[in-house]
Amino acid sequence: MALIVHKYGGTSMGSTERIRNVALRVAKWVRAGHQLVVVPSAMSGETNRLLALAKELMPQADGPEALRELDALAATGEQVSVGLLALALQAQGVPAVSYGGWQVPIRTDSAFGKARIDSIDDTRVLADLAAGRVVIITGFQGMDPDGHVTTLGRGGSDTSAVAVAAALKAHECLIYTDVDGVYTTDPRIVPEAQRLTTISFEEMLEMASLGSKVLQIRSVEFAGKYRVPLRVLSSFTPPDIDLDEEARSGTLITFEEDEKMERAVVSGIAFNRDEAKVSVLGVPDKPGIAYQILGPVADANIDIDVIIQNVSHSGRTDFSFTVHRNDYARTMALLQSQVLPATGAESVSGDPKICKVSIVGIGMRSHVGVASTMFRTLSEESINIQMISTSEIKTSVVLDEKYMELAVRALHKAFGLEQPAAV
Amino acid sequence: MALIVHKYGGTSMGSTERIRNVALRVAKWVRAGHQLVVVPSAMSGETNRLLALAKELMPQADGPEALRELDALAATGEQVSVGLLALALQAQGVPAVSYGGWQVPIRTDSAFGKARIDSIDDTRVLADLAAGRVVIITGFQGMDPDGHVTTLGRGGSDTSAVAVAAALKAHECLIYTDVDGVYTTDPRIVPEAQRLTTISFEEMLEMASLGSKVLQIRSVEFAGKYRVPLRVLSSFTPPDIDLDEEARSGTLITFEEDEKMERAVVSGIAFNRDEAKVSVLGVPDKPGIAYQILGPVADANIDIDVIIQNVSHSGRTDFSFTVHRNDYARTMALLQSQVLPATGAESVSGDPKICKVSIVGIGMRSHVGVASTMFRTLSEESINIQMISTSEIKTSVVLDEKYMELAVRALHKAFGLEQPAAV
Repeated sequence: MALIVHKYGGTSMGSTERIRNVALRVAKWVRAGHQLVVVPSAMSGETNRLLALAKELMPQADGPEALRELDALAATGEQVSVGLLALALQAQGVPAVSYGGWQVPIRTDSAFGKARIDSIDDTRVLADLAAGRVVIITGFQGMDPDGHVTTLGRGGSDTSAVAVAAALKAHECLIYTDVDGVYTTDPRIVPEAQRLTTISFEEMLEMASLGSKVLQIRSVEFAGKYRVPLRVLSSFTPPDIDLDEEARSGTLITFEEDEKMERAVVSGIAFNRDEAKVSVLGVPDKPGIAYQILGPVADANIDIDVIIQNVSHSGRTDFSFTVHRNDYARTMALLQSQVLPATGAESVSGDPKICKVSIVGIGMRSHVGVASTMFRTLSEESINIQMISTSEIKTSVVLDEKYMELAVRALHKAFGLEQPAAV
Repeated sequence: MALIVHKYGGTSMGSTERIRNVALRVAKWVRAGHQLVVVPSAMSGETNRLLALAKELMPQADGPEALRELDALAATGEQVSVGLLALALQAQGVPAVSYGGWQVPIRTDSAFGKARIDSIDDTRVLADLAAGRVVIITGFQGMDPDGHVTTLGRGGSDTSAVAVAAALKAHECLIYTDVDGVYTTDPRIVPEAQRLTTISFEEMLEMASLGSKVLQIRSVEFAGKYRVPLRVLSSFTPPDIDLDEEARSGTLITFEEDEKMERAVVSGIAFNRDEAKVSVLGVPDKPGIAYQILGPVADANIDIDVIIQNVSHSGRTDFSFTVHRNDYARTMALLQSQVLPATGAESVSGDPKICKVSIVGIGMRSHVGVASTMFRTLSEESINIQMISTSEIKTSVVLDEKYMELAVRALHKAFGLEQPAAV
């Protein structure tokens, strides 16, 4: 008997028929003797429906009062799905109770729309589990110190599930989703992409942040911090599939490095075409220049990803970084109006039509030549590299976006990822 | 400056456009210097949509665990509408904050689906009002002592609004609805029906309980107990209508009898065709017989309305009562299987096709001959009276349901209700 947390995404909860399937699956785990806590998302489309209604009434909601109301509103989506799932379980003879985040409570800070979990009280949940009930908790939301409803931001249900698993010291947190695991890259771009049976926490972090949208990155950080074993698996297998088979399916995100395991050098190829590149050219190379450029950008709440500063020549240097494509125009305007006059740089340039492609792998740490294989492969395809950024377990390049698919396919092949992964 | 509570029904909240109109109306009151608390229902159709989803998953939800989940589920309907209304007000530059019943908190007992309000904490609401905010509170719901969400049952938003008005000692509670007041009878049956500018609390109670579905009866009881001045008025006047005109519109439910006012003898004609009549005939007339008959019915949670016991002849009497038509078959079965053998009565009979028509008026107390005018009028129309029941301010008759419209029209005319009411 183990305490298991299941998380189901919006697609898995998308209709009463699908909710019934979720209940059948959960019931199977209960009947096998496990204690179950389930964290579902809102039914697919529901959060968007609610936010669209809000937008009709307030097209530009950005003050704290408005954000507070948006959170209270959006949170109802999950409150509906937990109630329906509890009824579906009860209808199958499985005792179940649902809670909103505020009832557990899941305590968060007051950053409406992107709140962070401070603590989770396990008293109520443990009492219900001890009484033989499945406990169903709303994903995506909590309550701030003043008793306001908060949401964790899009995809926050993953984070809720992992946080609940951490608080309850669950044996494993199973993230049921519409993909059957983490792949070496997106199979829509590389049909030969292979499912990974395991991936390290660090690699998963890089894959998630680089756009392999299987898991929300904050949930992976949370899992890493509290060492919650996390499994991504399909919610579209038949609910009555053999439990042992289901428990081994998908991709397990691990925290201990398995010495016995022959690890691939590169685990996967991530990519992202949501970014834009901006450069400040001919900046006088003196201390504090990075802050003078990036300070105003950060103050404007624009997230920065890759940052590159070239070595200087003639006392001047070029400074480039990438931002989300939606922030491109705002960033360019900011650089023109504030940064250019303040720094005495020569000019500003930018390109919104770029992509970022990254190779990720814990094996890179001990293997030389991985980056050079990447550069050679791209060169053989005549793809020009615009920026390079490296870390211990990933190497990213910024390319013209038209080369993205070609680059991903070539790299996937170059690193031998089309072979079935070793288990 | 006064503290005013507004309540808006589901139709008034039925779309973002209508919610915007509600916000315009509330903003008008705020700009006139009033402190506003608003209690809206769920958007029309929403509660039914949610309960239909639940029914797909659990066709027969009746245990306390299931009822708990249904309450949590249904409560989300109002949680959506309060958030949207807060945003609509903020968009018009009016500071506003929304609360779920649990956040105020509105404390109730644990009778899921039909909870009763125990207390309302005014601390948070008064602080917001003092800070210049409109406070929007979910109707229909509260929180029980264990922190579970409860609902007050259908139409409970009226009760929430009155309870909030009582707790805050509001100057007046305005119930905005899709009718423009309380009428002498249903205008769909008697086109000459007149709107009453005032009605006494006692009369309203009789009108509500007898089927004039303008206000939920519990809200009227609540208003009477705490002497909350209550006004029923239209939410379909233009939101920018002159405030003084709006404040005098509709029907005011009063608690003080106005000595100066020339009151009509009869204020209105109420009717109801949701009832069925059952009789236990030839019951041995001995002490305790009423309890022997009605005890099992009450134990089966069947509500009883009119009760008639005739004088006995030859030591036996006939005992009749009315129940909701939905409970008719169950009641008849219960009488046959339990009551007949236990009491030694001769037989049981019943009729589901009846209606009840009542004349209501506080003036009846001091006027003789009101009931006889009623009986004469029905007799002139050749309508047979099956049962008669009287109280100080109403006289009800049970008739074959086919006579209902005819009886209502004839009585409305006989009591001179087609004249415009005195203001």
